[in-house]
Amino acid sequence: MTETSRPARPALSRRGLLFGAAAGTVGATLAATTASPAAAAAPPDAEDLVDLARTYPFYGTAEQAGIRTPPQRHIVFMTFDLVSPQRADLQHLLARWSAAAAQMMKGGAIGRIEPARPDAVGLDTGEALGLGPAALTVTFGLGPAVFSDRYGLAAQRPAGLRPLAPLPSDALKPEFSGGDLSVQACADDPQVAYHAVRDLARIARTTGTAATRFAVLGFGRASAGPGQTTPRNLFGYKDGTRNIRGDADFDRFVWIGDGPQGIRGGSYQVVRKIEMHIENWDTDRIGDQNAVFGRFKQSGAPLSGRDEFDTPDFALRDAAGAPVIPPASHVALAAPENNDGVKILRRSYNYTDGINALGQLDAGLLFISYQNDPAHFERIQARLGAADRLSEYVSHIGSAIFFVPPAAPEGSYIGAPLFA
Amino acid sequence: MTETSRPARPALSRRGLLFGAAAGTVGATLAATTASPAAAAAPPDAEDLVDLARTYPFYGTAEQAGIRTPPQRHIVFMTFDLVSPQRADLQHLLARWSAAAAQMMKGGAIGRIEPARPDAVGLDTGEALGLGPAALTVTFGLGPAVFSDRYGLAAQRPAGLRPLAPLPSDALKPEFSGGDLSVQACADDPQVAYHAVRDLARIARTTGTAATRFAVLGFGRASAGPGQTTPRNLFGYKDGTRNIRGDADFDRFVWIGDGPQGIRGGSYQVVRKIEMHIENWDTDRIGDQNAVFGRFKQSGAPLSGRDEFDTPDFALRDAAGAPVIPPASHVALAAPENNDGVKILRRSYNYTDGINALGQLDAGLLFISYQNDPAHFERIQARLGAADRLSEYVSHIGSAIFFVPPAAPEGSYIGAPLFA
Repeated sequence: MTETSRPARPALSRRGLLFGAAAGTVGATLAATTASPAAAAAPPDAEDLVDLARTYPFYGTAEQAGIRTPPQRHIVFMTFDLVSPQRADLQHLLARWSAAAAQMMKGGAIGRIEPARPDAVGLDTGEALGLGPAALTVTFGLGPAVFSDRYGLAAQRPAGLRPLAPLPSDALKPEFSGGDLSVQACADDPQVAYHAVRDLARIARTTGTAATRFAVLGFGRASAGPGQTTPRNLFGYKDGTRNIRGDADFDRFVWIGDGPQGIRGGSYQVVRKIEMHIENWDTDRIGDQNAVFGRFKQSGAPLSGRDEFDTPDFALRDAAGAPVIPPASHVALAAPENNDGVKILRRSYNYTDGINALGQLDAGLLFISYQNDPAHFERIQARLGAADRLSEYVSHIGSAIFFVPPAAPEGSYIGAPLFA
Repeated sequence: MTETSRPARPALSRRGLLFGAAAGTVGATLAATTASPAAAAAPPDAEDLVDLARTYPFYGTAEQAGIRTPPQRHIVFMTFDLVSPQRADLQHLLARWSAAAAQMMKGGAIGRIEPARPDAVGLDTGEALGLGPAALTVTFGLGPAVFSDRYGLAAQRPAGLRPLAPLPSDALKPEFSGGDLSVQACADDPQVAYHAVRDLARIARTTGTAATRFAVLGFGRASAGPGQTTPRNLFGYKDGTRNIRGDADFDRFVWIGDGPQGIRGGSYQVVRKIEMHIENWDTDRIGDQNAVFGRFKQSGAPLSGRDEFDTPDFALRDAAGAPVIPPASHVALAAPENNDGVKILRRSYNYTDGINALGQLDAGLLFISYQNDPAHFERIQARLGAADRLSEYVSHIGSAIFFVPPAAPEGSYIGAPLFA
């Protein structure tokens, strides 16, 4: 029988212990076994306790939840194709989706799981019963085809909403791309997120309004604010160190600041399914890996600095006169300093699809960014895709763009002002 | 900007509130929106706090961790084909895997993530750095082909290890079946579980000993002991109410009680990837769903009782003389009372593979059972597959069997006595 042990909590910071890197003992008897010093276990910090009772409101905020919300640990992202040409059907779907999302974000079911009459069908599928809200947020997006004459919405099209320009990193597969509606469900329990998307998909199906297109289940330890560690991608590097944080940058780069009601306070959601060739990556030398990212793997510090949050010094040169941070590194190509100050909010998750047809590990990044102009994403990705040394190890296999309307007041629904 | 609220913790049991089912308010304006009373959110209980600093020992226990261990919230399960015919290669792999698993279960890396020399390759891929042990367990299994003349192990074959008999539920696909080695990594963080399997796969690949075969990422709120809720499958029903719990049943049904060192204290691991046709299921009437499982959906109680843990009364008849629990229901077919007392330990997880080729939600159950005789699984599944009304809604698309050796003492490795 196994036993549980909880190490005592020393009064040392996580970072202090990580870099103290005590030598591990490796207990196998054969000489060939791994015997290098190993990084010590991180000490248990308070943020290791996930509060599954946490809730966020659906109604009454300025912007939809799930954008600025501290990233939860799990995501189920799904897109849909509209199959009804009726404007009223689209309205009904958005209204029912809004009501259902609001219920589920409180931790509730969207109707009776077990109706009293045995010949009735349950309104909620039930698998999240008893799991709590788990910080669920449901964020709805509207694709370019929504704003068409078909739905009488051509005149309402947000100025920036259009298909993304072709990008040098594109290796797009239709089965992971596009869609007329998007649902981003994030939660600290994957079953809570899956339940939400599944029940919303069921409403779309049973009303004959929209059909499922693609879905991705993603995971990643979240960066939930000051004191939390930045999540790592499956290349082992911290991802999000320079992400947008303050009010001023949200107003400047994320939220659409003008336009009519129903547009103002919205944002554009760009979604990229990025396959990462992790088996190839794992054969690469650490010096090259660090040069590809422009950061140290363990600390996350820029190659010009010592600590994760040190500002990269792109002008710094080594004794031979070469830039310490390679100009073709990820951090240099994506930096606001090198893009006329442009920033995008990234809210990405790792994913795995098991083993691919070649017998290799099939995994990558569900990249999601929010910005008030899709050209900001295109600008940065055009540089990354053309010159980034990372491109050798990644393929952008999916792509989609959506307008994310502002939140709704109680009694209304997402997108309602567009139909006014 | 969204705000966080944490409901106060009322002095009421979760069950009490669940069945109090307060009516939910649904805020959409259109008449067509869902407007049924909804089950209220479960109150936050203490078990909603996941301790990501929890560790289990790899060495020195009688049995391997990950079998009797309270189920963690996530699993990455992977199987491998042996590609080296060398007995020594298999030994080396098991020794390196054991050493690596022991390090990772402590929350450590398996070697330097960032070697000092820039032309060196890191020994650990790094994505779990800082995430803590998260209750990681790594459980190793040996498939039938291991016990062959090729590896000089034909004489060591555990008495019960053989390919499973064909079963009426079989719709098996080779890409989700079989394998010579299995790795079950369970943790309360999916990135910790994925990191473990990925780094073990890397050792197998770089040593040229074994190649990846199939992998499944699974999730599910765990039942971690008294006071915890039983996890629900994606049909919305509790799964595991009558699971094995006490020492006596573990000794009688799970652990192999006799045989030589290296066999005694082991178990047989049966793995089935069960596709669940959840869209069809969701159209079924609640009375039929309850009859299929033989339980009430919301409470989990047998149809003959009121509470989840009430013992099913298979003899109880209704006023018309019909059995209250249908003899073809899941609970009746699988019950020890109807199988000469035979029990198996189930340790299953939900999974999703996104959208299938028909545009339907692709999801199901990664069924894993442990038993000291694979015939016990075959007996129960033969009944379920032939008569179970559930069969209309499920397809067994993957199948594999492994012998799970007992644990190793520090200084040794899993399976070492077999090579003595």
